[in-house]
Amino acid sequence: MSLKAQDPHIEKEPAGIGRRRFLNAAAALGIGSVTLAGCKEESKPAQGGAAAGGAAPAHGAEAPHQGGAGPVHIPPGQLDTHYGLWSSGHTGDARVIGIPSGRELLRMPCFVPDPLTGWGITNESKAVMGTKPDGTLEYVVGDTHHMQASYKDGIYDGKYCWINDKINARIARFRLDYFVCDKITKLPNVQGFHGIFPDKRDPVDPAINYTTRVFCGQEFRIPMPNHGKDLEDTEKYGALFTCVDALTMDVKWQARINGNCDLVATSFDGKLAATNQYNLEEADFYAEMMSRERDACLFFHVARIEQAIKDGKFTHIGDSKVPVVDCRVENNKDPKSAMVVRVSVPKNPHGVNASPDGKYFVCSGKLSPTCTVIDLQKVLDWFDGKLDDPDKSIVAEPEVGLGPLHTTFDGRGNAYTTLFLDSQVCKWNIEKAIKKYAGDKTVNPIVHKIDVMYQPGHINATCAETKAADGIWMAVGNKFSKDRFLPVGPLHPENDQLLDITGEQMILAHDNAVRPEPHDFVILPRDWLHPKQVYNLDDFPLATKSQADTGVTRNGKKVTVRITSVAPAYEPTEFNVKVGDEVTLILTNLDKVEDLTHGFAIPEYNIQFIVNPQETKSVTFKIDKPGVFWYYCTNFCHALHLEMRGRMIVEP
Amino acid sequence: MSLKAQDPHIEKEPAGIGRRRFLNAAAALGIGSVTLAGCKEESKPAQGGAAAGGAAPAHGAEAPHQGGAGPVHIPPGQLDTHYGLWSSGHTGDARVIGIPSGRELLRMPCFVPDPLTGWGITNESKAVMGTKPDGTLEYVVGDTHHMQASYKDGIYDGKYCWINDKINARIARFRLDYFVCDKITKLPNVQGFHGIFPDKRDPVDPAINYTTRVFCGQEFRIPMPNHGKDLEDTEKYGALFTCVDALTMDVKWQARINGNCDLVATSFDGKLAATNQYNLEEADFYAEMMSRERDACLFFHVARIEQAIKDGKFTHIGDSKVPVVDCRVENNKDPKSAMVVRVSVPKNPHGVNASPDGKYFVCSGKLSPTCTVIDLQKVLDWFDGKLDDPDKSIVAEPEVGLGPLHTTFDGRGNAYTTLFLDSQVCKWNIEKAIKKYAGDKTVNPIVHKIDVMYQPGHINATCAETKAADGIWMAVGNKFSKDRFLPVGPLHPENDQLLDITGEQMILAHDNAVRPEPHDFVILPRDWLHPKQVYNLDDFPLATKSQADTGVTRNGKKVTVRITSVAPAYEPTEFNVKVGDEVTLILTNLDKVEDLTHGFAIPEYNIQFIVNPQETKSVTFKIDKPGVFWYYCTNFCHALHLEMRGRMIVEP
Repeated sequence: MSLKAQDPHIEKEPAGIGRRRFLNAAAALGIGSVTLAGCKEESKPAQGGAAAGGAAPAHGAEAPHQGGAGPVHIPPGQLDTHYGLWSSGHTGDARVIGIPSGRELLRMPCFVPDPLTGWGITNESKAVMGTKPDGTLEYVVGDTHHMQASYKDGIYDGKYCWINDKINARIARFRLDYFVCDKITKLPNVQGFHGIFPDKRDPVDPAINYTTRVFCGQEFRIPMPNHGKDLEDTEKYGALFTCVDALTMDVKWQARINGNCDLVATSFDGKLAATNQYNLEEADFYAEMMSRERDACLFFHVARIEQAIKDGKFTHIGDSKVPVVDCRVENNKDPKSAMVVRVSVPKNPHGVNASPDGKYFVCSGKLSPTCTVIDLQKVLDWFDGKLDDPDKSIVAEPEVGLGPLHTTFDGRGNAYTTLFLDSQVCKWNIEKAIKKYAGDKTVNPIVHKIDVMYQPGHINATCAETKAADGIWMAVGNKFSKDRFLPVGPLHPENDQLLDITGEQMILAHDNAVRPEPHDFVILPRDWLHPKQVYNLDDFPLATKSQADTGVTRNGKKVTVRITSVAPAYEPTEFNVKVGDEVTLILTNLDKVEDLTHGFAIPEYNIQFIVNPQETKSVTFKIDKPGVFWYYCTNFCHALHLEMRGRMIVEP
Repeated sequence: MSLKAQDPHIEKEPAGIGRRRFLNAAAALGIGSVTLAGCKEESKPAQGGAAAGGAAPAHGAEAPHQGGAGPVHIPPGQLDTHYGLWSSGHTGDARVIGIPSGRELLRMPCFVPDPLTGWGITNESKAVMGTKPDGTLEYVVGDTHHMQASYKDGIYDGKYCWINDKINARIARFRLDYFVCDKITKLPNVQGFHGIFPDKRDPVDPAINYTTRVFCGQEFRIPMPNHGKDLEDTEKYGALFTCVDALTMDVKWQARINGNCDLVATSFDGKLAATNQYNLEEADFYAEMMSRERDACLFFHVARIEQAIKDGKFTHIGDSKVPVVDCRVENNKDPKSAMVVRVSVPKNPHGVNASPDGKYFVCSGKLSPTCTVIDLQKVLDWFDGKLDDPDKSIVAEPEVGLGPLHTTFDGRGNAYTTLFLDSQVCKWNIEKAIKKYAGDKTVNPIVHKIDVMYQPGHINATCAETKAADGIWMAVGNKFSKDRFLPVGPLHPENDQLLDITGEQMILAHDNAVRPEPHDFVILPRDWLHPKQVYNLDDFPLATKSQADTGVTRNGKKVTVRITSVAPAYEPTEFNVKVGDEVTLILTNLDKVEDLTHGFAIPEYNIQFIVNPQETKSVTFKIDKPGVFWYYCTNFCHALHLEMRGRMIVEP
């Protein structure tokens, strides 16, 4: 069926949209309709198998993929070669995936509660997540899109990664030693926080060769502040580009801009940050957002912004104490003092990615079949007054196919762009694209195209946005999977496909089913991370270091219960409290053996959490029901695990 | 390191435990200590790879597993051959896994909120989950253990599956057409609801050749009722075996028993249900639970129980209206009228499984190195007065290894038992075990043992507990993974291993990382399920069937907002409300294309849910903040997905 037939905006002219603007909208929708409706039902896999829905694989009939990256299947006892750090979309957490196997090694909770670990239940996790005055969680939903890791000397240093929450404008940081979220920051006066990227070194101090800032883009324009005034007048709405301190996680500054922010990129020299902008129209309805032929990539001169703040050239918005600088283009026309410059990109671009050689940013066209290659030195030249027109920093606009969204790199001069509408990845050569744009009609920058299944979004190759891009594996996050997996009802998994990119032609190696909806991801070699697998008891101020120190302490109605776990028993195995008490229960896992995690649940009291080896966690709750409540170990720990339990005896 | 050194109960004699009982406890702990401390660090995979932590697989060096079941890796475009329905432990949901690939195709929310689907946020899901008077969820944690599917004629009919919540004594049912939870029932007067099994046909009516009951075991003994009396006197505690109506999901009856319930099994003829019992001591501390040399498998005569209820021979507990029959053994000594009989099993058994030929139940020893094979016809003979001693129904007790937990079957007369302490699976032949037990010393029932990594719990082979057991693949849920996957901090994934069991010897085929903690699972051929992938608009009473019917209706402060979605737009794209309003927002997805799911989030209002094709969902919330709030599509749907949004304009 055709989506077009369902869409009222095709049949009638939306109010307030002129004839030409309407045609633009209809054309763009037409593309989407045709492709989605057809959705390549007839597609065959690129290699190595029968069509979807075909017969079961015959005995011994496997045709392993034959690329240079090696096999996908990791035999029992072997380890994956790469870590993948993955966003989870509206599932609201983050994931660690083994590459090439595609096995999910960990889900890392951050913005939403996690019943397994007790995230959102323990006092420690609630302190990170944030609570209302009544102690309940401020937010219980999240929408994570972009996962980026901290850099040093142009490669990932294995310290941190960050992720955004689009629904509630939060940024979370994960420690990559313990793989846990340790900080969440709310961005003030922001709605639709989408793109995120850490800087790669300091713009001024060459000694700071590592990440100290994370830049955050605002997609939805809102009244500034959003407190109930200027509700209907969208011309008074604004958008902010936010800089967060990577170490303290405090918001350093915000920049008010025209249009909106979509994705974010940073230069390897630390001097430039940028965001692609798809709504320079500042419209509030999709058809109107497509009226301009060209939107933009907006570049921020980080050093000048921070100098302006030092010079006191900032304001505040509403109650926020964060300094806000004015980065609207009409107030930044003089290259010598400008904090921003706009480089035009064909209409409604999506995605901006930094090439690993440090030279270029590549914006994808979305509604234009092109990518736009911007030479960063020329952008700096404009800020230095050496380039009269910022659009002269555009050095290539190769035509890659329909619906280009994101681009990645192999470190050998090639770029790989997802084509949402074509359901393909296009491999193209950057220098050839530049030669062609410069007038050499003999070169063809397109190297290879391959079908992916279906409607690809983000794409990333191993180490692609580092100086060590190695061009081994490439993952593609497909938004539709349709017929690629066994049917499981109306909700389909996404299809994260893995491709071998070691050769001239890409090879499709693996379809990996994943819960909706991964957006972005980074993939790095396993020896770039150095996780710790047992906690240090001393890192927990509340730790009960000996079983002799366990037990109940009462202060009026406030009761503290200290419990330790050593497989297969808690100590104590029972404690008494009374209805009306407020209990703070502190559990320390004294087991030191790696992987010897215990759980702790209390029936009817909504308490469940785990304690890893040498970890301490606490929960505080009101006693409101009399009776016997068996607390028990929820994490299988020992042959006598079922017997690991004790009684909370509640007197009326 | 030794766990023994950490355990205070080894060093001192626990109060109230006699000398002999203490020795029993110490001996059992000793076994656990040695094995866990060693944890097979030196183990090599059984085939096909270097040791864990070894080099990355070399190019082209993959040694695909060579068993008769076929390859593990499913090439792009091919489908898995089997569905796996998996429990999730304290993650609190259920999962659908593709077999043999191990890919997670779906997580099915039930007991805990799910931010992706909006489970626990929408009015429809809250009605299934249950709410407090203030509208918030009654429970936000869960601990799912056992997943079982509905039967017809001795095989799965693809209609339903069920799962338990151990923390809060709930049972959830999933529809297997849409793969969604449609009912949750709370068991009255139960704590530690653990085992679960549907019946396979009616015990009396031969026309009812399908599942109509689900049996549920209570593990933790509590005061009956648990309302604050008899708190400390454990001799007055009780446990219940519960029967739930499979169709209405109402609780039909409960049976009060001695001891406790662990796992549950049912016979193929519908006449018998059973639970293994590890705590006939009725103790409250693990060391005391090990004092008896033999515990039991308790058999229920279903027809007699239901006749007793018809005859009015039941009581009630507390406020519950559920009829409770007395199945304590001292009141069921006459075989001709008994509703239960106890068959003894060596100490602290774990697991009871029905052989696919319908003849036997197999209990695992846990603290005994044996399995106990019970002949069901002989149990029926006892109920008929033809067998003087119920223990004469035991026809074999093969010695399989240390820490036997669960058993599965290949349909060719072999059983496969997990050995928790040995970290092995033992394959043994049932008829040979029976011959040996009968006195034939020439036979050796043990066929093969294989190392698994590490500490295996549940085990299940394809269709194993159906009459169509086919002996192709076997999954083993290992409770420790230690060195089998890339390290991701202190919380290790579990290791669900897949073995090819088509040959005489088992072959280890795949290590699959899974989020803690899968317990049980069933695996069935893909053609046994017939999912639907697009909803029927007419199945939703609140559906808005036309865009013309969208908009805002106000009744005082109660506001109804009807919205439809058709990619890439909502209708309407804005609506106005006021602080103080109570809004019920109803969203119908009018898109009909398979896989064309939309999401819907409102910033700052904790609203996020998805609508699959032709689905309708609703949310009700209070308006408490003025300003502009962009609702937007969270599920990538179209080239213009980012532009799919609208404004909730809240006037002060």
